[in-house]
Amino acid sequence: MDKVYEYIEGHSGEYLSWLEECCNQPSISAQNIGMLEMKELVKHFLLKVDADIEEIETGGYPIIYGEINSAKKKTLMFYNHYDVQPPEPLEEWLSDPFQTIIENGKITARGTADNKGNLIARICAIHAYQKIHGELPVNIKFVFEGEEEVGSPHLEWFAENFPEKMNVDGIIWEGGSRGANDKRLHVGLGVKGISYVELICKGADFDLHSSEAAIIENSAWRLVWALKTLKNENEKILIDGFYDDVLPLTDKEKAFIQTMAYNEDEIKEQYGIDGFLNNLTGDPLKERLTAAPTCTICGFESGYTGEGTKTVLPSVAKVKLDFRLVPKQNPKKIVSLLREHLDRHGYSDIEIKEYHGMVPFNTDPNSPFVNTVLAAVDDLYQEPPIILRNLAGSSPMNKMLKKSTVPAVQIGVANTQSNIHGPNENIYIDDFIQGIKLTANIMHRLK
Amino acid sequence: MDKVYEYIEGHSGEYLSWLEECCNQPSISAQNIGMLEMKELVKHFLLKVDADIEEIETGGYPIIYGEINSAKKKTLMFYNHYDVQPPEPLEEWLSDPFQTIIENGKITARGTADNKGNLIARICAIHAYQKIHGELPVNIKFVFEGEEEVGSPHLEWFAENFPEKMNVDGIIWEGGSRGANDKRLHVGLGVKGISYVELICKGADFDLHSSEAAIIENSAWRLVWALKTLKNENEKILIDGFYDDVLPLTDKEKAFIQTMAYNEDEIKEQYGIDGFLNNLTGDPLKERLTAAPTCTICGFESGYTGEGTKTVLPSVAKVKLDFRLVPKQNPKKIVSLLREHLDRHGYSDIEIKEYHGMVPFNTDPNSPFVNTVLAAVDDLYQEPPIILRNLAGSSPMNKMLKKSTVPAVQIGVANTQSNIHGPNENIYIDDFIQGIKLTANIMHRLK
Repeated sequence: MDKVYEYIEGHSGEYLSWLEECCNQPSISAQNIGMLEMKELVKHFLLKVDADIEEIETGGYPIIYGEINSAKKKTLMFYNHYDVQPPEPLEEWLSDPFQTIIENGKITARGTADNKGNLIARICAIHAYQKIHGELPVNIKFVFEGEEEVGSPHLEWFAENFPEKMNVDGIIWEGGSRGANDKRLHVGLGVKGISYVELICKGADFDLHSSEAAIIENSAWRLVWALKTLKNENEKILIDGFYDDVLPLTDKEKAFIQTMAYNEDEIKEQYGIDGFLNNLTGDPLKERLTAAPTCTICGFESGYTGEGTKTVLPSVAKVKLDFRLVPKQNPKKIVSLLREHLDRHGYSDIEIKEYHGMVPFNTDPNSPFVNTVLAAVDDLYQEPPIILRNLAGSSPMNKMLKKSTVPAVQIGVANTQSNIHGPNENIYIDDFIQGIKLTANIMHRLK
Repeated sequence: MDKVYEYIEGHSGEYLSWLEECCNQPSISAQNIGMLEMKELVKHFLLKVDADIEEIETGGYPIIYGEINSAKKKTLMFYNHYDVQPPEPLEEWLSDPFQTIIENGKITARGTADNKGNLIARICAIHAYQKIHGELPVNIKFVFEGEEEVGSPHLEWFAENFPEKMNVDGIIWEGGSRGANDKRLHVGLGVKGISYVELICKGADFDLHSSEAAIIENSAWRLVWALKTLKNENEKILIDGFYDDVLPLTDKEKAFIQTMAYNEDEIKEQYGIDGFLNNLTGDPLKERLTAAPTCTICGFESGYTGEGTKTVLPSVAKVKLDFRLVPKQNPKKIVSLLREHLDRHGYSDIEIKEYHGMVPFNTDPNSPFVNTVLAAVDDLYQEPPIILRNLAGSSPMNKMLKKSTVPAVQIGVANTQSNIHGPNENIYIDDFIQGIKLTANIMHRLK
């Protein structure tokens, strides 16, 4: 591998120029800006590593699918996306979001961290490996989509309709970070699922004068009483059967959680809070964050919410709830348990409006692919990685891999202060180079 | 009295023209339209009955105070207001809101019911009585304010600073209605009080991604849990001491409540509801409406309330609550009981923002003045009146009479379909004439 590393180091400027070219091309899926040009640019870079390219029409922005088939035993997939978040608010950027700038060892522009830095680093690794060894030690498949920032509406369709393309030994998924201060690489093995619903409670057909509240039902009170049956003050979710499918953590998963960094004092300071739920701290806090399902009020609205006072008896009360789910919970089942719960507690009149659901996805931590990645990290990083059994949030991982048992690992070139989705998004150049080497090492070890 | 009645009947057209003149003059306090002109018009009509007029500067619109002192034993006060609600939405009016129109026995314009019809009817009664008898049987005091529709911000100040003007034997207050279908006159003896507060619960300094809800406090959940300690599903308010000061109803008050009409089927149909709280019906329902204190969620807001979904952990949750109070509850005390309750239940961090409070006001139903009014009603109306111990809502009665024991009775020329505050506000001409007679009869009996 040393020769590959040397090649990468010797061509850092060239690889950085590839990243610049990608970041200087806007590709805002939500605003339909630059998507066509970006798609062509992605194909241009895939051609540099002799990939066979297929443009898969989705009805939205196409998936650029690529293969480098060297008739090897193992196949490695890279999932990345070529679209970015809108740059707004523009006034918070110190430089043009679509004109890279290099300063203090960092490269700043929209997409550097999410996700062009990773997309290009994967290609660079292949490029360097090919330059040194002629051919790759594994077969490669690329799935580069253009709709990640708008919810990946066609990714599930892709996985279902191209099962032969999904036939791989492991996936390096999108990206990841290292700690901005403690430098340890984050290795993600999955994401929580989600079930997002709105509960709608209706009283009289229209808002009434609040003097009538003495005898006429108040939809807001009714929703409050329904909600308090869902979760108690100790954060225990009270829906019958809610926890039934939760897989207990294995000792290995618990050990992974212990690797996780969570600077409690820094977070308390940053968020202006005195402590955490149930006074948790240390490992139990990290375990709750990554491995516990939740029931969260994301929004509540009823009656008059403007300035000052209005004496009104609200006709309608609405609450938006998200449930974050962990293996093996299922979003559909959670919604039906919720329906049964409300009916059983006398709230059958409360309507459940179902938004999206995603199953949780977790890679088996005992899979050989995980061990391969961890060994590669050991080779290249001074400190042992932080292993995240799940990210606390969700991601399109759930969509593409909902029916799959392929191991997928999230690693990437960002750090925890990269301002992903925010202004002045940036990565360290060192992390970009290191990310190229790590990818090369993984290919080498997987063979 | 027959001669007075005859004079009234013989001059109905003239009296109606006075009302027309008043209603054709806009006087929208909230929009500062026509207030000066209306004030002058009120003085013009008071001069017709030889009142001594004093224009009391309030800092807002003046109170037109008048006296007709005939050195009689008893003094009767009329409280009315010369301002009106804005006419909007204009497109719902079938005619110009400030141009009276007479059709099907009704006169339609903004202010006919609330409150110019009553203001003018009181003056007409005095005018007719003077024409027949030369002088009045009682002394008269007029309090005509111009700020009722913007919350009577100076009425309490008036009562406190002019105690000698408040020295009367009874007050005919503002106005009232009769049933649109059952024709019985409503006689109001008071109003509930109110305490309006906002509870504000704060979590982290800013909204967070909802994935963090696993370990960081959710202000909306916390407010839900605090609220459920305030009132249970059976509508029992759980604040310690909340009901302590509630005066039990006397037999006479219960008998009054029984006179009240409340067409349950019509209300259910109109509001689109299946029934009333706690399945109440009949007298217990009417008793709850008029005599029970309440704790009402008027508004609730937290987090994301727009279309679709946003996975957010809300920083702040706010609820607006009104408590309707009955004798002898006190709004200040209710707020301090609420504070103690929240503290006791572990919610000392929840801020209480206090808006307005008004003490409940009830006239002693055994007062001779009430009997005088009821006897006058007996003389003039075919059917016995509906006697309302309180209106379920509030009114500036609480402000002017908070430290007073003067009996005040609400009667007037509207009906329950007069569209007070709404488009096409109207009264029946017959009710206007009858209102003039009733006022004359009350003066006659009070002497």
